[in-house]
Amino acid sequence: MADFPLPPGSTIGILGGGQLGRMLCQAAARLGFDTAVLTPRSHAPDARVSAHSIVAPYTDDHALQALAAISHVITFEFENVPAEALDRLTELGAAVVPGARALRETQDRVVEKTFLTGVGCATVAFEAVDSPADIAAALDRIGAPALLKTRREGYDGKGQAWVRAAAEADAAWAAIGGKPAILEARADFVRELSVIAARGRDGAVACYPVGENRHDGGILHLTRAPAPGHEAVQAQAEAFARRILEGLDYVGVLGVELFAMADGSLLVNEIAPRVHNSGHWTQDGAACDQFEQHIRAVAGWPLGDPRALFETEMQNLLGDEAEAWEAIAAEPGARLHLYGKGEIRPGRKMGHVNRLIRAL
Amino acid sequence: MADFPLPPGSTIGILGGGQLGRMLCQAAARLGFDTAVLTPRSHAPDARVSAHSIVAPYTDDHALQALAAISHVITFEFENVPAEALDRLTELGAAVVPGARALRETQDRVVEKTFLTGVGCATVAFEAVDSPADIAAALDRIGAPALLKTRREGYDGKGQAWVRAAAEADAAWAAIGGKPAILEARADFVRELSVIAARGRDGAVACYPVGENRHDGGILHLTRAPAPGHEAVQAQAEAFARRILEGLDYVGVLGVELFAMADGSLLVNEIAPRVHNSGHWTQDGAACDQFEQHIRAVAGWPLGDPRALFETEMQNLLGDEAEAWEAIAAEPGARLHLYGKGEIRPGRKMGHVNRLIRAL
Repeated sequence: MADFPLPPGSTIGILGGGQLGRMLCQAAARLGFDTAVLTPRSHAPDARVSAHSIVAPYTDDHALQALAAISHVITFEFENVPAEALDRLTELGAAVVPGARALRETQDRVVEKTFLTGVGCATVAFEAVDSPADIAAALDRIGAPALLKTRREGYDGKGQAWVRAAAEADAAWAAIGGKPAILEARADFVRELSVIAARGRDGAVACYPVGENRHDGGILHLTRAPAPGHEAVQAQAEAFARRILEGLDYVGVLGVELFAMADGSLLVNEIAPRVHNSGHWTQDGAACDQFEQHIRAVAGWPLGDPRALFETEMQNLLGDEAEAWEAIAAEPGARLHLYGKGEIRPGRKMGHVNRLIRAL
Repeated sequence: MADFPLPPGSTIGILGGGQLGRMLCQAAARLGFDTAVLTPRSHAPDARVSAHSIVAPYTDDHALQALAAISHVITFEFENVPAEALDRLTELGAAVVPGARALRETQDRVVEKTFLTGVGCATVAFEAVDSPADIAAALDRIGAPALLKTRREGYDGKGQAWVRAAAEADAAWAAIGGKPAILEARADFVRELSVIAARGRDGAVACYPVGENRHDGGILHLTRAPAPGHEAVQAQAEAFARRILEGLDYVGVLGVELFAMADGSLLVNEIAPRVHNSGHWTQDGAACDQFEQHIRAVAGWPLGDPRALFETEMQNLLGDEAEAWEAIAAEPGARLHLYGKGEIRPGRKMGHVNRLIRAL
């Protein structure tokens, strides 16, 4: 097991394959670390900026052994990495941060919401459902309309269906593929917020200012941070984040998606045990960005300063929106971040742009 | 020959091997480019963050062919790359930016100063000298003390000797290894400044605010930018930079080292046809940093905004100063940049730290 804090020159392993892994690699390199990426995809965005890359399924034992051998600490960019892979890495003597526990508590939506309420975070009413009959019964207690989601997988609005009445239970069940599910009460939120938070190996916690998110077709489109009027909700958001981080004995960066209700209260919608799309504004708007923050945390370094230096708007470049790169490059105050993905597909996250609105 | 502007996904070739190449690779990746590094050193800092690396001497023809085949444009991090390598790449059909001309005009100090005075930039008096007798004669015209420098190679104070009197000509000649040299009048400067400037493929010019530099043993130690009172010299510095950029028909970022004289005038000390150590402050203090600026220029993109957002102090971490990484990481407002160099050697540039002093 490595000694922490890891000195520059150490190698940080990343179970990755996408843009979050890429930006983690870039932040790690800035601090003098080498990175080693294990990804199932060849030509992955992160493998092209890392010192070492291993192309294999996450569960390939030879690949896991190679990653463990080369890495002083191992982290991941994606919560749907198989928890068995992290268990195996741990068994091989690797330091895996955050650990498999964070994945287990967040890969299943029922387990996640049960954890959240257990640590004192408010959520919408929810029930586990395993059949159309369960859905109809739960709808009675939760109230209609309610949102049916698969317990596992599914992100960016995939694997979800609205249920407006018991008569729709069969259709909704079919729509999500007839998998173990959760039925969630509709949150009558006035806006969607998120807080990006980090916890160090020493237990120190750092929270970024709350951001406001706009989704489009279930996919994040815009984040404005700090959110207008964030002062009124910052303490509540930080309290929730701290309960989650401490409840998971978490080390690293974590994203907490929040619903802001009309009465000023917050509900936790979901948590992502990783750097988060709604934290990309920190690259240009905060004193220390979320990617460096995660690398600092997993390497056992002191956490960086999460203060916002600029009011910033982050816009995701989805699909052919990335074709506007030339116009965006000509905009003063726009900071373009592209992920090196070859093929443009509808809704695919190709990059983002941070626009600095004003200095704080 | 590639079409410009190069779209994201194109590959930028870099004749490199060091930290400047590394930071160019990182900036290129942020804009969605792949990079291919040709470096004579294995485990080079830049090869560890690039999609492709070729380890071979700069003049290895197979290596140059491979680099030309993979790259849509080729640039360099270091002015002492053999100009023949760039000629060969051009012959192979590669777009080389800035071209071999920029190297030819700057690799030889006599040629460089002759070019500078030819485009209307003030410099110290100088003469080419090829023997101790030449030195003694030149000293008569230039005045003592004068600085003897080899015409080629030499940086960070290497290959230089002071000549205080004709009697010292033999010793100074021996001290620099008896190579073709330049004798330069001493500049009675009050401070050392530099301006980092860029020129796009379309001829647009962008200049960063002038920075003030402190050297220690001939090696840059600190840059403060914008330099206190830079307003008084900015226009003169920009005029010099523009003459140089246009005189070389230059594309890319170039560093111009300046002497500020007691009467408020500026002399050009030397130029570096590349990103420059005294421009590292732009990574955290300017709207668009010098590395992204260079990538934008060589890719034919619009130039980025060179405005300073923060008054910034850049400190080089030389040799064992880099061992202070843990203390620096704990400083709020300090942005640490480490180069991933394995071995600490006295005076070796291991990294730098940018400290944000105040928002502008």
